[in-house]
Amino acid sequence: MLKYRTLSRSCHIFHPKSLSNNTLKSETTQELLQTVGFVRRSQVGLFQWLPLGLRSLNKVSNAIRNRMDSDGGAIEVSLSAISSKALWQATDRWNNSELFKLKDSKGKQYCLTATCEEDITDLMKNYIASYKDMPITIYQMTRKYRDEIRPRGGILRGREFLMKDAYSFASNEEDAFASFQKLDDTYNKIFKDLKIPFVSAWADSGDIGGEFSKEFHLIHESGEDTLMSCKHCGDISTLDMSQSYPEKDGQYSGDVDCKYALTKDHSTLICFYYPKDRQLNWNLALNAMDKDIDLTLRNKPNDHVLQVYEKDNEDIMFSKILRVMDCRLNSKSNFPDFPLKKYLKNNFGQISDVSIVDAQENEICGKCEEGRLEPLKSIEVGHIFLLGNKYSKPLNVKFVDKENKNETFVHMGCYGIGVSRLVGAIAELGRDSNGFRWPAIMAPYKVSICTGPNNPENSQRLQDVKSKLLNDPTMQNLQNDILDQFNEKLGIGARIKLSHAMGIPLCVIVGSKSWPNVEIEIRGIRWGEKDLWRKQFEKKCSELQWKCTKNEHGIEKHTVPIQHLVEVIGVLLKDM
Amino acid sequence: MLKYRTLSRSCHIFHPKSLSNNTLKSETTQELLQTVGFVRRSQVGLFQWLPLGLRSLNKVSNAIRNRMDSDGGAIEVSLSAISSKALWQATDRWNNSELFKLKDSKGKQYCLTATCEEDITDLMKNYIASYKDMPITIYQMTRKYRDEIRPRGGILRGREFLMKDAYSFASNEEDAFASFQKLDDTYNKIFKDLKIPFVSAWADSGDIGGEFSKEFHLIHESGEDTLMSCKHCGDISTLDMSQSYPEKDGQYSGDVDCKYALTKDHSTLICFYYPKDRQLNWNLALNAMDKDIDLTLRNKPNDHVLQVYEKDNEDIMFSKILRVMDCRLNSKSNFPDFPLKKYLKNNFGQISDVSIVDAQENEICGKCEEGRLEPLKSIEVGHIFLLGNKYSKPLNVKFVDKENKNETFVHMGCYGIGVSRLVGAIAELGRDSNGFRWPAIMAPYKVSICTGPNNPENSQRLQDVKSKLLNDPTMQNLQNDILDQFNEKLGIGARIKLSHAMGIPLCVIVGSKSWPNVEIEIRGIRWGEKDLWRKQFEKKCSELQWKCTKNEHGIEKHTVPIQHLVEVIGVLLKDM
Repeated sequence: MLKYRTLSRSCHIFHPKSLSNNTLKSETTQELLQTVGFVRRSQVGLFQWLPLGLRSLNKVSNAIRNRMDSDGGAIEVSLSAISSKALWQATDRWNNSELFKLKDSKGKQYCLTATCEEDITDLMKNYIASYKDMPITIYQMTRKYRDEIRPRGGILRGREFLMKDAYSFASNEEDAFASFQKLDDTYNKIFKDLKIPFVSAWADSGDIGGEFSKEFHLIHESGEDTLMSCKHCGDISTLDMSQSYPEKDGQYSGDVDCKYALTKDHSTLICFYYPKDRQLNWNLALNAMDKDIDLTLRNKPNDHVLQVYEKDNEDIMFSKILRVMDCRLNSKSNFPDFPLKKYLKNNFGQISDVSIVDAQENEICGKCEEGRLEPLKSIEVGHIFLLGNKYSKPLNVKFVDKENKNETFVHMGCYGIGVSRLVGAIAELGRDSNGFRWPAIMAPYKVSICTGPNNPENSQRLQDVKSKLLNDPTMQNLQNDILDQFNEKLGIGARIKLSHAMGIPLCVIVGSKSWPNVEIEIRGIRWGEKDLWRKQFEKKCSELQWKCTKNEHGIEKHTVPIQHLVEVIGVLLKDM
Repeated sequence: MLKYRTLSRSCHIFHPKSLSNNTLKSETTQELLQTVGFVRRSQVGLFQWLPLGLRSLNKVSNAIRNRMDSDGGAIEVSLSAISSKALWQATDRWNNSELFKLKDSKGKQYCLTATCEEDITDLMKNYIASYKDMPITIYQMTRKYRDEIRPRGGILRGREFLMKDAYSFASNEEDAFASFQKLDDTYNKIFKDLKIPFVSAWADSGDIGGEFSKEFHLIHESGEDTLMSCKHCGDISTLDMSQSYPEKDGQYSGDVDCKYALTKDHSTLICFYYPKDRQLNWNLALNAMDKDIDLTLRNKPNDHVLQVYEKDNEDIMFSKILRVMDCRLNSKSNFPDFPLKKYLKNNFGQISDVSIVDAQENEICGKCEEGRLEPLKSIEVGHIFLLGNKYSKPLNVKFVDKENKNETFVHMGCYGIGVSRLVGAIAELGRDSNGFRWPAIMAPYKVSICTGPNNPENSQRLQDVKSKLLNDPTMQNLQNDILDQFNEKLGIGARIKLSHAMGIPLCVIVGSKSWPNVEIEIRGIRWGEKDLWRKQFEKKCSELQWKCTKNEHGIEKHTVPIQHLVEVIGVLLKDM
């Protein structure tokens, strides 16, 4: 049996002595995390985890760890937060402006790890010798650092954050993909364990690079990301990856924008034409060009691209030009002037019927070509990448294969969850005008017990309820999960309010009037199956003298005699 | 019941494929930690924790955490590793050359926390308002950073290390001292839980400053520290704090060294005289002077001290001079020339009969004045300080007291354990020519099961033993503590050798010859009561058909039929 972890009476000094309805309503979620006592901001983008927040952070960490071990078959390690300049130079990432850099007293340069591809690859190089040593997946749960220029959104985007980062190593593409899929499954299970609504979406692999990637998002209006979802085929993609078609092609006759690009060999000028009120989507542009675009010129102005084109081609007269027209345009659209004065019509090519702009609400889904797209605001909390040899090649990680050759680079994948960010995201998700609402698995406490003033009668009742909960063999997982210590000045109403604000799923109210019945107020959200408890309720309510009512503020209330409390709490916690 | 945490087969890639006796004997303990797969050094003074090492590190962390919660009544938080220049300037510690410093993209300066007095004081300032909010003790278990110029000794002295640091806050001196004593008790319990020999010693409070302090040491010949212990009175002090007397005063007639100092008001020149072959001890010197020494001049040469003295006193003729003579000297000793040419004999004072040099072996203990002192080499693993207002004053942390006044600064204490250092120290402590020997509470696994080649018969026997251990209700604490996955190429002998090298306390050997008897080889050390198991053995050996032998390499061996294995393992683990 687990030992009951004594709650220090003093913990309550971190909690507010009073909480006005106005505070609860008007503060942003990230401000309220500080007010209620989860975290405190010490400097811009840097946070101190207070007892309440640390409990939730540790619980999420453990939930993730359990799945990484049991389903991901991954092995936990813990790398240093200080990485070397040489490694980041080898992978060409040293010049990233978001790296925190430092020197030691001898002038040697380091960075704080923003992610650990370099370090883990360098580590595994020492242990992977043969194809027999793979597939293998390694993970850690450590703090990472990013010098965000404008850190915002509290723990959603701190400059120091807790990250679960995993890395897979395989000897061939199939195994690498199998590892990717295994971690994809594991991530799905992790977010299901949290009982929160989430989606996964194919995504651009961005700066980490590599072959393809998938993001995990919590849908919430406060999110900075936009996903496009098709109700017909169920596809959900990030805006970067979402392809859409207009109701009918060639309906746009307004002004046209143009963006120049070059093929990788610089032999061909590519002119992307698209409606002026839309945004060019580089992933769609890449697909239209079969990936043959020099992306280093992506953010250069058109003039610069033209100069490079003219410089790299001896006789522009004979050089190739390709026009890529978004399918929304027609010949009556108002095209900009063509920049080159001399060119041969024979060298002109054209691709049309492609969609190369960011999708918009209500356009046709590019996957099924039937459903309509719906934009969803979301918060990204996880990202998995199939990396190929992006890191193993510059860091030269090879292995002896079945043919006893030592020529192939290891195939990698990487898999991140922003653990502290996840706490911030779930705070947003459950937030209402009474405070937070956490899933039971990560709530700082699962149950609070609120009583009236400190007198012998109330203390006795509190003890009775507590010992019922702690001594029941089916309730072992409550051993360390009951909040019953409050500032003694708080009346029963203020304690209930604070418990609700903290987001504790169940609040057991021990009042003198109702005793030996107790009341349970529900803050936990039933995101998934909402009827699990109701079926039990209908079956057992008369046997257990269990009543359920709703009060005027929309908070579900239950009453039950003390002798049946344990059983009812067990049922109620199951679907939260 | 706890879920059985699946051990990944792949874990063994971090372990050596072979281990020569020579490696086991000749490598330093810190090298062997890398060879066997506990840690890997990524850069000078920086370490990556591999699965084996991380298990031990986490176990020690949890053992400490349990005591901090239950006995220390302390509250866990987790602060940022990035601290602000302003805070460290306020306490005059910014110029410490061991601080890792960094700038963000806006040029703002930070340091990585080497310890957290500044940050925790700044945090608690927001929550401590009244004397009623105290006493309170806060702790965290986070990585700390020190830019050691010559990091050495592996994880014993890394530039990044895991530290448990606690801080107490009290409204008066008595409460502050009570907190200090409570933590002293807690530390004693922590080290007793680890079942390792340790001592605590009064110590100099050094750079952290404050009123007084105590160190916790593991006695080991490889240690960099020296303690002086008196067998008569049991006193153990650090060399800095140890007072000793010679067998008989005034026996030294050789050359005399002299060190000058000034009183705090610079009115008096102090001349410390002591034998040339001994080391002046500033703590003893301070005691001899009732603390009236300007310590800022401590490391200045005599000439400089004289210049300051002459500058700050109008007429040297009339200024005061105090001679402090170590009790070992006599008038025949060879004193250096007195530096001042003019002085009045009336202004001359003298203190003799004091001991002001570092203690030496076999001198008389200064505490009891009876026993002889014995030097002990040791490794410091914990340090507790009573700080007074050293940090609360510069950071201005006051509180409203019982008289409703807001004038007093908070009284603080701080309490550190180098958690990763402790792993390194215990590695040294248990190290022998077969590898490591860990206390069961922090061994990476408590039990290993070694079998012969992978064939159906061996697999079946392995399963039998495992399910016996895992399904026994008294063995719940073994759920996640059995190592049975080895590189399949390793024979049974190599597996046993590796298990011993890893320091797993019990190695269960499942051989085809002895079956259904199994053998248990013991690596765990019985530091404390060595007879606990023997009493049980004598009582039960015939009932359980339990035999105990010693083999030629000094490794204790037991045999027992498989049906009694669980009970015997339970007995054996109790005193390790």
